Amino acid sequence: MSSETAPSGFRQVLRDDALAGRRILVTGGGTGLGRAMAERFLGLGARVMICGRRSEVLERAAAEMGTLSTHPVETFPVDLRDAGRVEALFETAFADGEGPDTLINNAAANFVARSETLSHRALDAIIDTSLKGALYCTSAFGKRRLAAQAPGTVLSIITSYAWHGSPYVVPSAIAKAGLLTMTRSLAQEWGPRGIRFVALSPGAFPTKGAWERLVPRPELARRHETGNLTGRPGDPAELAELAAFLISDAAAYIHGECVTIDGGRWLKGVGTFGHLGALDEEDWTAMR
Amino acid sequence: MSSETAPSGFRQVLRDDALAGRRILVTGGGTGLGRAMAERFLGLGARVMICGRRSEVLERAAAEMGTLSTHPVETFPVDLRDAGRVEALFETAFADGEGPDTLINNAAANFVARSETLSHRALDAIIDTSLKGALYCTSAFGKRRLAAQAPGTVLSIITSYAWHGSPYVVPSAIAKAGLLTMTRSLAQEWGPRGIRFVALSPGAFPTKGAWERLVPRPELARRHETGNLTGRPGDPAELAELAAFLISDAAAYIHGECVTIDGGRWLKGVGTFGHLGALDEEDWTAMR
Amino acid sequence: MSSETAPSGFRQVLRDDALAGRRILVTGGGTGLGRAMAERFLGLGARVMICGRRSEVLERAAAEMGTLSTHPVETFPVDLRDAGRVEALFETAFADGEGPDTLINNAAANFVARSETLSHRALDAIIDTSLKGALYCTSAFGKRRLAAQAPGTVLSIITSYAWHGSPYVVPSAIAKAGLLTMTRSLAQEWGPRGIRFVALSPGAFPTKGAWERLVPRPELARRHETGNLTGRPGDPAELAELAAFLISDAAAYIHGECVTIDGGRWLKGVGTFGHLGALDEEDWTAMR
Amino acid sequence: MSSETAPSGFRQVLRDDALAGRRILVTGGGTGLGRAMAERFLGLGARVMICGRRSEVLERAAAEMGTLSTHPVETFPVDLRDAGRVEALFETAFADGEGPDTLINNAAANFVARSETLSHRALDAIIDTSLKGALYCTSAFGKRRLAAQAPGTVLSIITSYAWHGSPYVVPSAIAKAGLLTMTRSLAQEWGPRGIRFVALSPGAFPTKGAWERLVPRPELARRHETGNLTGRPGDPAELAELAAFLISDAAAYIHGECVTIDGGRWLKGVGTFGHLGALDEEDWTAMR
Repeated sequence: MSSETAPSGFRQVLRDDALAGRRILVTGGGTGLGRAMAERFLGLGARVMICGRRSEVLERAAAEMGTLSTHPVETFPVDLRDAGRVEALFETAFADGEGPDTLINNAAANFVARSETLSHRALDAIIDTSLKGALYCTSAFGKRRLAAQAPGTVLSIITSYAWHGSPYVVPSAIAKAGLLTMTRSLAQEWGPRGIRFVALSPGAFPTKGAWERLVPRPELARRHETGNLTGRPGDPAELAELAAFLISDAAAYIHGECVTIDGGRWLKGVGTFGHLGALDEEDWTAMR
Repeated sequence: MSSETAPSGFRQVLRDDALAGRRILVTGGGTGLGRAMAERFLGLGARVMICGRRSEVLERAAAEMGTLSTHPVETFPVDLRDAGRVEALFETAFADGEGPDTLINNAAANFVARSETLSHRALDAIIDTSLKGALYCTSAFGKRRLAAQAPGTVLSIITSYAWHGSPYVVPSAIAKAGLLTMTRSLAQEWGPRGIRFVALSPGAFPTKGAWERLVPRPELARRHETGNLTGRPGDPAELAELAAFLISDAAAYIHGECVTIDGGRWLKGVGTFGHLGALDEEDWTAMR
Repeated sequence: MSSETAPSGFRQVLRDDALAGRRILVTGGGTGLGRAMAERFLGLGARVMICGRRSEVLERAAAEMGTLSTHPVETFPVDLRDAGRVEALFETAFADGEGPDTLINNAAANFVARSETLSHRALDAIIDTSLKGALYCTSAFGKRRLAAQAPGTVLSIITSYAWHGSPYVVPSAIAKAGLLTMTRSLAQEWGPRGIRFVALSPGAFPTKGAWERLVPRPELARRHETGNLTGRPGDPAELAELAAFLISDAAAYIHGECVTIDGGRWLKGVGTFGHLGALDEEDWTAMR
Repeated sequence: MSSETAPSGFRQVLRDDALAGRRILVTGGGTGLGRAMAERFLGLGARVMICGRRSEVLERAAAEMGTLSTHPVETFPVDLRDAGRVEALFETAFADGEGPDTLINNAAANFVARSETLSHRALDAIIDTSLKGALYCTSAFGKRRLAAQAPGTVLSIITSYAWHGSPYVVPSAIAKAGLLTMTRSLAQEWGPRGIRFVALSPGAFPTKGAWERLVPRPELARRHETGNLTGRPGDPAELAELAAFLISDAAAYIHGECVTIDGGRWLKGVGTFGHLGALDEEDWTAMR
């Protein structure tokens, strides 16, 4: 049993068979955090399916990940905004009676902009992908698992600003808030029938490509990455380990819950008296 | 100064001039809670505009409310799902340089259904009206107020299940959760430039027509209305009074906040040991 | 009907008889925000009782407020940390069969300090006053109202950092979090028997005396006061108006709820992409 | 590598060395969930210390757990309500320069009672143990780790009713709410200096002895255990696995966060339209 170490000091803690026998569909699984999760799931013994918009990206990712498992990674090119195609994807995925038992709602669109400059097309593009797309997937997945009276697990990737909101990414915040409430609502409706819902709220996890579009200046990117209580960005391996734990059978009693993994980002600065960090020893002494 | 009393024991507490000089656009203002708010705003000295899908409903409502104010109620028929028409509505409303200073995002679509039976068209219908429609309105309103460097107020009507979720009304819960996060996000982005955001989360406020569609059996309707810590449904006049208070200048320091008015509905039953309400005097004595 | 205006632009909106017939006990009512509330309640027709530690402070406050009502302000000197004396206070207050129908849990102790330097005596001092004191009062008040089968209202003053926490005022944050959960818990237990619970979370409301001890340097005080989305401190009159609205009969359907009035303080800085406020026009244009 | 299976279907997923090298102090570690956690930590390679009120209980637990590790389990008898003794405990524990690197705030007192019958002594007993005791421990632990510039981890066991409240266990709800806010506050203050804070909110996890006192009638105990979205009580092994994951290095980026593990207990019944679960196929068909 080898133990890998990342720059964050991260060390894997899950057993190599933690997800043995599982079949997991990761939306947006060809790139970024989706791919980091897909790779970890493979390493823990799961079979993995990925979907995404660009066929060639999916194919390359599947080929590269092929070495991690004896089972090939299946790929499903799809634009999640198209409900009909999402339905067709699941029809195919479930065709052999061996469809996924776990869905990871990871795909999302986002860009930064001042809200007063957003066209309604921009609003639609983000909400249709990040919210409606996830809804279509969850609906198509859940319907089939319920009809088969088979248990299932849905993990949705939220964001730490879904709850408290954020300027400049308003449609994304809205879409993710919707996903969080979907998690809690369907936990109530489908939970008693065997479908378990969990969610993850990541803070700043840098991945190739994603960053440039979101944070235009290097010094702001740096601030974005370190602006939390640990002073460092997250390591995608940390997110993947938590995701794997949450969808594992060991977490069966965690239901309807969203776990934030952000190095305390949202808490930094929120505390009313945080500005007293500016006081020095002498100030404190004087105040006694 | 007259003091009206409703069956709930409700007594108005706001001064007759609490909203004098204000110009308020209420979406969905021709019926139900939207109309109850519109009437109260008129009674407090405001000018009122209402929009909604059915022209004749708006006209009748405007005519009936005409007696409450010396200013006629303006009407704008519009389908909020159509971004272009929403834009046109605001273009007209602001044409004379006297557009609304306050927007009430009240219009919403909802129906109850088991989630696995929902078609994607049903999902879209609710999310497009309740969430996208409100976004289009807020965007069109905010852009104009910001461009004019004029202050503004946006009150969005959420629901007490937006946060904790609910089965059987999942698309509605999702849409309202999005509105809540819009409130917090734009409070951050536009607040410092003078646009104030507040929200209201109503529990069960029976209004003509709305009920039958949502709660099919009389005994369930009764349970819906009384299933809270006060044991009674809300009186639309109570909602209207709170809405008026929140948009008034007296509440200028309440910003980014959502106030729940539900008779403690969400708290009823949520408490782990609530089932001990079944104990009798003897049980309690025995337990000492 | 006169309409007073404060520097904040605040204008009273409640009718002069909004609290007519009510009898309200304000803990810590001799100074600061407690006194601001007491004065407003008197102006709205209520009878007021105040308690606090220092007899002479209470007497002076009562004398000064005497002009606002035909009913004298009653005073009860008490150290809230002493359960026996709290019990005695309520025994006296209810002696003539005309005890308070409303309790305002306002008294609190606080000071800023690095948590690792706090002695257990310091911890105790704050928790015993701010949390246990309020519990003793609520218990003594509730018991008597329930025994008399008379309705009652309890408003507790929390703080916006009770929920999200804050460094340097940790015992105070803890105590106020306890009060918030007391509000929700007793709303569930006593609400169905007629005792209504509400709470208020104020941000930065400067009052004479309170400030110096909490914020040692003038520039930090300024930052404390303006560090919110409105850019200004709260006006105690704004807090008092909201408090009066919440305890009034018009708010009878608001139960178990806490309303934050902080100018969006907790939201400022919490939004992940708030740092993009540093971008200029050129940056935004470049990013399109 | 063996894989244990409990009636809940629970299967351990953590590697046998997940906590190797760690030194963990569990308050209340001699019984119930505290002991379940202590055992699991031992099984994952950690050294364990336990404290509690009754010396003989600790000794017996330590002896029984002795087989799980080559390192003996250290025991510290202490009444956590006594700040001086808590200080002495930590003085001893850290005496050899090898004090704990992790603190589990698990000890708590609780009993069910109607709030109007609680004496102030009863209030004090619960708040002093569950809240103040944990504060004293966290303070004594943190001071020493900060002084040594050594990192540390604090996990506090909350309860799912800390946030939303519960009747009949009000002092316990209050105490746990305080602990949750301590977690968030000290995460802000001490997090940047290397002390990580996390929390767990368990639902119904039956342990010997604890149950009878809390739930007097068998049919209510059953309802307590199954009243959640999974329909079963939690297995202490599930709680222990989550606790171990959260304090492990793999979770280093989870900071200031509380994870609820309650089978969706708080969500059951909270959803407004949950009562529509009473509808049958015919009803739904009729409603289309």
